[in-house]
Amino acid sequence: MTTTRDHSLDAVTDVPPSPTDLPHDVAEIAPEHPRPGSLDSAVIQEALLGRWAAERRESRELAKDPALHRDPLLGMDEHRQRVFGQLGILVDSRAVHRAFPAEFGGNDNHGGNISAFGDLVVADPSLQIKAGVQWGLFSSAILHLGTADHHRRWLPGAMDLSIPGAFAMTEIGHGSDVASIATTATYDEATQEFVIHTPFKGAWKDYLGNAALHGKAATVFAQLITQGINHGVHCFYVPIRDESGAFLPGVGGEDDGLKGGLNGIDNGRLHFTHVRVPRTNLLNRYGDVAEDGTYTSPIDSPGRRFFTMLGTLVQGRVSLSIAATTASFLGLHGAIAYGEQRRQFNASSPEREEVLLDYQNHQRRLIDRLARAYADAFSSNELAVKFDDVFSGRADTDVDRQELETLAAAVKPLTTWNALDTLQEAREACGGTGFMAKNRVTQLRADLDVYVTFEGDNTVLLQLVGKRLLTDYSKEFGRLEVGAVSRYVVLQASDALHRAGLPKVVQTVADAGSERRSANWFKDPAVQRELLEDRVRAKTADIAGTLSGARGKGQQAQAEAFNTRQHELVEAARNHAELLQWEAFTRAVDAIEDEATATVLTWLRDLFALRLIEDDLGWFVAHGRVSSQRARALRGYVNRLAERLRPFALELVEAYGLEQKHLRMEVATDVEAERQEEAHRYFEQLRASGTAPEDEKVLRERQRKEAKSKASRLRRS
Amino acid sequence: MTTTRDHSLDAVTDVPPSPTDLPHDVAEIAPEHPRPGSLDSAVIQEALLGRWAAERRESRELAKDPALHRDPLLGMDEHRQRVFGQLGILVDSRAVHRAFPAEFGGNDNHGGNISAFGDLVVADPSLQIKAGVQWGLFSSAILHLGTADHHRRWLPGAMDLSIPGAFAMTEIGHGSDVASIATTATYDEATQEFVIHTPFKGAWKDYLGNAALHGKAATVFAQLITQGINHGVHCFYVPIRDESGAFLPGVGGEDDGLKGGLNGIDNGRLHFTHVRVPRTNLLNRYGDVAEDGTYTSPIDSPGRRFFTMLGTLVQGRVSLSIAATTASFLGLHGAIAYGEQRRQFNASSPEREEVLLDYQNHQRRLIDRLARAYADAFSSNELAVKFDDVFSGRADTDVDRQELETLAAAVKPLTTWNALDTLQEAREACGGTGFMAKNRVTQLRADLDVYVTFEGDNTVLLQLVGKRLLTDYSKEFGRLEVGAVSRYVVLQASDALHRAGLPKVVQTVADAGSERRSANWFKDPAVQRELLEDRVRAKTADIAGTLSGARGKGQQAQAEAFNTRQHELVEAARNHAELLQWEAFTRAVDAIEDEATATVLTWLRDLFALRLIEDDLGWFVAHGRVSSQRARALRGYVNRLAERLRPFALELVEAYGLEQKHLRMEVATDVEAERQEEAHRYFEQLRASGTAPEDEKVLRERQRKEAKSKASRLRRS
Repeated sequence: MTTTRDHSLDAVTDVPPSPTDLPHDVAEIAPEHPRPGSLDSAVIQEALLGRWAAERRESRELAKDPALHRDPLLGMDEHRQRVFGQLGILVDSRAVHRAFPAEFGGNDNHGGNISAFGDLVVADPSLQIKAGVQWGLFSSAILHLGTADHHRRWLPGAMDLSIPGAFAMTEIGHGSDVASIATTATYDEATQEFVIHTPFKGAWKDYLGNAALHGKAATVFAQLITQGINHGVHCFYVPIRDESGAFLPGVGGEDDGLKGGLNGIDNGRLHFTHVRVPRTNLLNRYGDVAEDGTYTSPIDSPGRRFFTMLGTLVQGRVSLSIAATTASFLGLHGAIAYGEQRRQFNASSPEREEVLLDYQNHQRRLIDRLARAYADAFSSNELAVKFDDVFSGRADTDVDRQELETLAAAVKPLTTWNALDTLQEAREACGGTGFMAKNRVTQLRADLDVYVTFEGDNTVLLQLVGKRLLTDYSKEFGRLEVGAVSRYVVLQASDALHRAGLPKVVQTVADAGSERRSANWFKDPAVQRELLEDRVRAKTADIAGTLSGARGKGQQAQAEAFNTRQHELVEAARNHAELLQWEAFTRAVDAIEDEATATVLTWLRDLFALRLIEDDLGWFVAHGRVSSQRARALRGYVNRLAERLRPFALELVEAYGLEQKHLRMEVATDVEAERQEEAHRYFEQLRASGTAPEDEKVLRERQRKEAKSKASRLRRS
Repeated sequence: MTTTRDHSLDAVTDVPPSPTDLPHDVAEIAPEHPRPGSLDSAVIQEALLGRWAAERRESRELAKDPALHRDPLLGMDEHRQRVFGQLGILVDSRAVHRAFPAEFGGNDNHGGNISAFGDLVVADPSLQIKAGVQWGLFSSAILHLGTADHHRRWLPGAMDLSIPGAFAMTEIGHGSDVASIATTATYDEATQEFVIHTPFKGAWKDYLGNAALHGKAATVFAQLITQGINHGVHCFYVPIRDESGAFLPGVGGEDDGLKGGLNGIDNGRLHFTHVRVPRTNLLNRYGDVAEDGTYTSPIDSPGRRFFTMLGTLVQGRVSLSIAATTASFLGLHGAIAYGEQRRQFNASSPEREEVLLDYQNHQRRLIDRLARAYADAFSSNELAVKFDDVFSGRADTDVDRQELETLAAAVKPLTTWNALDTLQEAREACGGTGFMAKNRVTQLRADLDVYVTFEGDNTVLLQLVGKRLLTDYSKEFGRLEVGAVSRYVVLQASDALHRAGLPKVVQTVADAGSERRSANWFKDPAVQRELLEDRVRAKTADIAGTLSGARGKGQQAQAEAFNTRQHELVEAARNHAELLQWEAFTRAVDAIEDEATATVLTWLRDLFALRLIEDDLGWFVAHGRVSSQRARALRGYVNRLAERLRPFALELVEAYGLEQKHLRMEVATDVEAERQEEAHRYFEQLRASGTAPEDEKVLRERQRKEAKSKASRLRRS
């Protein structure tokens, strides 16, 4: 192979080039490679569904019920009523009580609950999120923040929906920064009551499901003030409406009205004007006020207490990760099924148009995202396991809880953003028909839009991850001493030193010219891991270097220094989340024993990894992690991976187990294939009949040749 | 400056570092730099609105009328009726006739028409697109494909809406590949009629506005067959409904029903079963059939004839580019106005929270996209001028028409995709309130979704651009001779040779270590142009190299070779479109005389350019166009540019001229600022009153210090 062919496709594959320099079809790649149909779909499905596959299948079975499905033609008011009715079906089906204690009829099954809940998204995201408000937030606050008496008084009604409730944490003025909410709960010793008050418009609670219509009570987060001291945010059980549905005295509210999606949920605002609730309505697990106004807490540090209370909210992030993953698979299922049937443009033959999925660009659009959806699934499942470990009490030290928080703050942003991107690409890959409601993708995308900012704004969550990276880094290097950090930064910045420091994956100019070696290098999991790990480490160190320069210069100077690197910190956090996804993907692949299946999933994992590297290639090359020569070879290799996976695309997306009753998309049926066959038969019969009109272009070509030969005959004669 | 500070922010700016190594505020940057308020907004607005600013202002004035606005609570049926009524208002306002001939009451003003039409998007995209169907497609087909008799018979009714019409080109089976549509129009000499027929389901016309309800006629595209010859796609005027609204004999159809957006338009399917129309219903400007069935055409080549007929469709792409740009500005206006008011998190001071737009990450999210929206505006305007040149007849050679097609195929994909991305980012940047219908962004995004696949699927359009790049390249190098191409590829591939070939922008290791020089280099427009031009040239040459290897090997081999590079060809086409946008931006900036304004717009152009380079940095570094050292310096410089533009962000977005009656978004008002002030006053008064509760954290800190000093006193005593 000579250097003049640096850019040709064969130059970057890991298989020998064919004599024609053209791509090989699957059969040619290598005799031992898996063929379509040889994958063990059941094994893949178990891996994709994770530890609580059984609960998820129960949930998916329930979600086939048309009574739980979205009717897209319903207006907002009718949709809200329908979804409220659907919650009753969930209660009757015992679909939403798995996480509650056995004494209240639950199963103490946290991981199973959250996993099953995630898949409800296929019925209607409004149904899912309204259920999340009732049982994941409102009831959960009573369970996790309250104590035995509260459970006895309110859990049964919350669980059986006789007390529909709102979760009143977010305010107009404060979403992500919960610690700064302005609603107050001031203890009045005289009456032994808390006075709940929203002192200005920004303190009104907002965007609360169940607040506009159905809520009878709310778990209200407010600054607890007693004996002149503000003990920070605590949660209170506050009745808001009487049996007739009218607001109780001092309570008021507004309807948020129409939204960009999720219009089956009655989001609204609530305000409280000196509303009095008994002292015992404080959900007092992590902080209590005695009759005389004395405050006590089992957690001494106000900061730690706050994060412990808020930690109960993590389940929302876990469930959204699973729901977003399922939505991604739903969109990809439709688009890939359609891409296997739909034909457009006669590229390689005048007889028959090409199937969309045979086009390279279509492969990169859909199969890249399929690889990412697998990463979403595996990482969401690991998040669910971690969540279950903590919430079951099996492993719930502070460190465990912090790890869970960080993992959730990493996985939720990626999975939810990925879902929006994937649904949009699926929509576009289906063209005009993708825009039709009968294919559901646009509506699903509209509903999932808000998943990227609720239950923790994705950008804010990534900053939490970023701060954790900096904290871990500073532990490694002591208290961010300037000297140590600078040395580390120098080490990172110097390509030569860097290469010296990474002997395992060392690349030198010695292998320049060998494209085969480049491809083999990229597909080595040790290389992938090192590249992805090292990227996070180096970016974190680099940012830490800036911050260390501002140490001891006061809050403003430190904030300004931080702000000069905020954009990169968010990026480093995203890179960290990508690394976590890569690790989860790799563990899942390593656990698969069937050889053909493991081979194809390894290709898929490689595609996931290399797409990540491709997307940030500038960083890898400029920082000496990938040589220019290898960087130039990467694109071709990634294209080739997608092509190699193409015959397996439909099997791989079907392995997630969504059935027609879940999909309910015309593109996922055989309708297009039938239309193609009908058209094909028509033209075949027309040709066979001998009555087909001749194409003017063909006629002209024939006439031109005839004229030419006549002229030549005339010349000869 | 030492090498240990490679990554610090100051290292990559083009101004002297401050003594503290912290970012300068604007006042510090340089005394001669423009201050907020010093820009000439009127000058910017003229540049943004382009040659037909007057017509656009007329249109924007009309669009303030509440009767033309979307009512988001209307269901599909009511929305459709409302929009149909709104079309009558457009007729009465003479808002849609500018492009028609003076003899029919128009102004022969093509550029003005399309520019004014684009801004109608602020009223309701459904209104805009339904108007586009009636006057931009249906009436336009009569005008551009028909001749005098057709104009006389049908233009008045089409223009005054007494004949609502559908534009029946797309079929279920063929969207982008119009040449392959399967509807036939077979000439019957006996009756002197054309027989319009859709022989199978895939041949049904689909996604047609006005087809489900309101259309009385349709311009139907079909394969014209006469005397046993298929002369390719032609257009026919076909009545479809009688006065009562019932389908005429042989015509049938279905309602497309609910869509992902644009539900004010009654899209539907039509099918034709041997429907007979008079011979003279053939719109015969580019092809005619005599009574005896003889076909004639002023354009001999069937291929050129087809592209000429389809060329009349380009105005849709022009108008969508303008509409998408306006939508981007609308979203950014809301998000930037909100970002200037909304405060969240106490970063730099315990007294007051930070304004969102002061966060670096927020700057990069919104100001980067503002720069791109400017590029969208300038490139759309140049497209409109080119369109007007061709359609006015001032410059309508084949070459002009081809250039127009290519320009439209480049600008429409970028502007429409950018609009979706920008609206989504604007939505997320506003958090939960961005999801509320009162802020319009989600609905606008849902409506504009289909802009990326209709009037030419964006991916298909970029492939047209890509093929044009290859054609131009092959002209430059003869008939893709392998030798010449290979030599070119070698030249491209070799970094050393490459550098030798680009003396103007030469970068060598000699400047390593000088970050200032790096920043100066990046902001040199000659460097930006060279980088962006060279990228397109090099990628095209590289792909051409692969294709040349398959020459003469038959259609299938060539198609396969092409398919191995399709993904990169689409990317090269996108890069070409980005270059065109950069050029349009630069021309617009160069035309501005006011110094402060020109300076700030130059920063904005630089941000646009450098963001493009940042997004494809891997290519630039791996191919030797940007040194690793400069690549590492780029991020910091781009961050700094965004920070420098931050004080001007609101002015720059307001300069587009959208007023409150256009925006109709709560986030674009002062409501949030008022809420912030109310909250601020509350806390100030509380502090002043002396009754503010003490924070537990502060109390504990005080107690800790008191205990410490007490202990120390005890020790001393």
